[in-house]
Amino acid sequence: MKITCAKNELLNAIRFVAKAISSKPQTPLLAGIYLKAEGDTAELHGNNNEIGLICKIHAEVERPGEITLTGRYFQEVITKLPGEDVTLDYSDAEKIVHITSGSADFRLLSMDSRSYPTVKHFEGNLSFTVKDNVLREAVRKTVFACATDPNRPLFTGVSVQVRTDHVIFAATNSHRLSVNNLHLTDTTKTINMIVPSRILQELLHTLNSEIPIDVKVTCSYNSLSFEFEDVFMTSRLLEGNFPDFDRVIPKEFKTKVHLNTEAFRAAVERVSLIARSSEYNIIKLEFGGNGVVISSTNQEVGNAKEEVAAQIEGDGIVISFNAAYLGDALKIMDSKTITFCLNEPLTAARIVEDGVEDFVYVVTPVRTAN
Amino acid sequence: MKITCAKNELLNAIRFVAKAISSKPQTPLLAGIYLKAEGDTAELHGNNNEIGLICKIHAEVERPGEITLTGRYFQEVITKLPGEDVTLDYSDAEKIVHITSGSADFRLLSMDSRSYPTVKHFEGNLSFTVKDNVLREAVRKTVFACATDPNRPLFTGVSVQVRTDHVIFAATNSHRLSVNNLHLTDTTKTINMIVPSRILQELLHTLNSEIPIDVKVTCSYNSLSFEFEDVFMTSRLLEGNFPDFDRVIPKEFKTKVHLNTEAFRAAVERVSLIARSSEYNIIKLEFGGNGVVISSTNQEVGNAKEEVAAQIEGDGIVISFNAAYLGDALKIMDSKTITFCLNEPLTAARIVEDGVEDFVYVVTPVRTAN
Repeated sequence: MKITCAKNELLNAIRFVAKAISSKPQTPLLAGIYLKAEGDTAELHGNNNEIGLICKIHAEVERPGEITLTGRYFQEVITKLPGEDVTLDYSDAEKIVHITSGSADFRLLSMDSRSYPTVKHFEGNLSFTVKDNVLREAVRKTVFACATDPNRPLFTGVSVQVRTDHVIFAATNSHRLSVNNLHLTDTTKTINMIVPSRILQELLHTLNSEIPIDVKVTCSYNSLSFEFEDVFMTSRLLEGNFPDFDRVIPKEFKTKVHLNTEAFRAAVERVSLIARSSEYNIIKLEFGGNGVVISSTNQEVGNAKEEVAAQIEGDGIVISFNAAYLGDALKIMDSKTITFCLNEPLTAARIVEDGVEDFVYVVTPVRTAN
Repeated sequence: MKITCAKNELLNAIRFVAKAISSKPQTPLLAGIYLKAEGDTAELHGNNNEIGLICKIHAEVERPGEITLTGRYFQEVITKLPGEDVTLDYSDAEKIVHITSGSADFRLLSMDSRSYPTVKHFEGNLSFTVKDNVLREAVRKTVFACATDPNRPLFTGVSVQVRTDHVIFAATNSHRLSVNNLHLTDTTKTINMIVPSRILQELLHTLNSEIPIDVKVTCSYNSLSFEFEDVFMTSRLLEGNFPDFDRVIPKEFKTKVHLNTEAFRAAVERVSLIARSSEYNIIKLEFGGNGVVISSTNQEVGNAKEEVAAQIEGDGIVISFNAAYLGDALKIMDSKTITFCLNEPLTAARIVEDGVEDFVYVVTPVRTAN
């Protein structure tokens, strides 16, 4: 194999596929980045048997072929190259990739590329196309609500239910639930999947184009892939049945509180500073009159209290929450105002982004001594 | 105590003195930041019994007094405050500091301020004044060369020898030596000190004013302090006798090599990528003809080679160094060209910044198999 390509394009591709390289690879080969050159393209692969990433770049291919270089060295060497272009010249006999750029001259040992588990495209039971910004929003508004506890593996993923003209994203850690509805312009068949949060987090980092682009989503019963521009991302799915979350979404409320999102978010964030240090991370909300008093207490540190103006319909109520379950959700809410919908101090509450119909957030209160 | 001050000034002062708070404080009090208010000033102290830091800010003092708050909470709370000003109101009876700013209202427990080991100014055997940029350069050009190995405590500090009209800074890890001479405008007595690198690193971070300022340096046999603007920094000294480094500085050379600093630095940095992975971190320099060939080899990774143009006076020579001992020094050299002064493959070499008389760098080569 011998190719010449733009250093920065190669570097960006390496950085992207390197995200699939585990810090503790199961096999030495999985510490590698695989590169295959043919036509006018170099295709880079990173794989950890859970997530697989491919990135294509333009290359002048003098001799097609494949190489596999340790991700760490490949990235460090390309990062430091002095030239704008870089030539990779692989000697099959020596198993060495000769990397040249400007005055720099590196020779890196290649691993056995024929044994590398390349990332595979797959047919899938169904596929649909969605605009990147729409997909990004659905992921951003749900993936934060996943559990991090690996003992509840189902809840570390996002439930993705594909219906004929929409897709429902839902995530929960059993104390909070975030649901986002995504409308499709084309129609598909139906499928239920649980998608590991990891691939969705990577998708959020990768989907950052300023011009709207199309993302092709392909689903099977054990895998999912996203394909856009020069990128292919795939992940195994989690196995199991996601609980029927729709029945835990409260529909009627005794109290509805209208709040300025930014003022409420900032106050919750400040009061949480004290809550965060206690075991249960509790903040108390006292809704009444023309406002809500947000407070938290920690015996060893002190306490915090702040009042935010609010318009309250219905009964006053005192209710406590895990501070993080409020704060995390307020961070992803973009509407200027929100409505906090409540019933009793020990029943689930719902936060509605005013003017946003496709998003639901439900949070369970905590029982407190006082 | 009750004061009102600008939030950002208070925050900057907290961040500064917090640098003296150890991550594992010897006593709970040393996790605290002490604040004393009197006149129109609030003075903040951080202390870990090695390093002590004071920062003064302007404050409207309604009631003078002192408080001691856990550094972590003090910083987090002040960071998040919504207002431009902040009021700290201490209730002696409750031992609680009431912090208010805009709508925010925090009450933090104060520790026992009377027991706090405040940072003390001291008389000293001698003191001198130096411009910040001059002091900064002397520190920057030596402190990097200290040992990090705590088993050789003397070498973790910088030798500072104050003479009547100059100060000699010197640091070594026994494989490399960096010396910088600083000229004084006033005259002083003489003293030899070994200053822990930690306080000098903090000084580098702190001395960043754009307008030249005066720094007052006060020295005693066990302590050193730097005083400028609203800041006071002090440190204990290391005990012992620093070796006579002057005799290891080679004065005559068989080979002198003139190099472009930036070209040589960049090439050394690249070739070091391969060297870094091997146990000894060795790069080889082959001086001859019109250049130097820099190379490194690692059995498991591959090799790197790069040629840089050089003007060589005297014999050609092949010599190997620890890559870091070259790279670290090249990073702090600012002259456009340098002269690499050499004798034999196994005797110490010297790198001279062309046109810079007050700086000396000596590096010992390593013996290699080939």
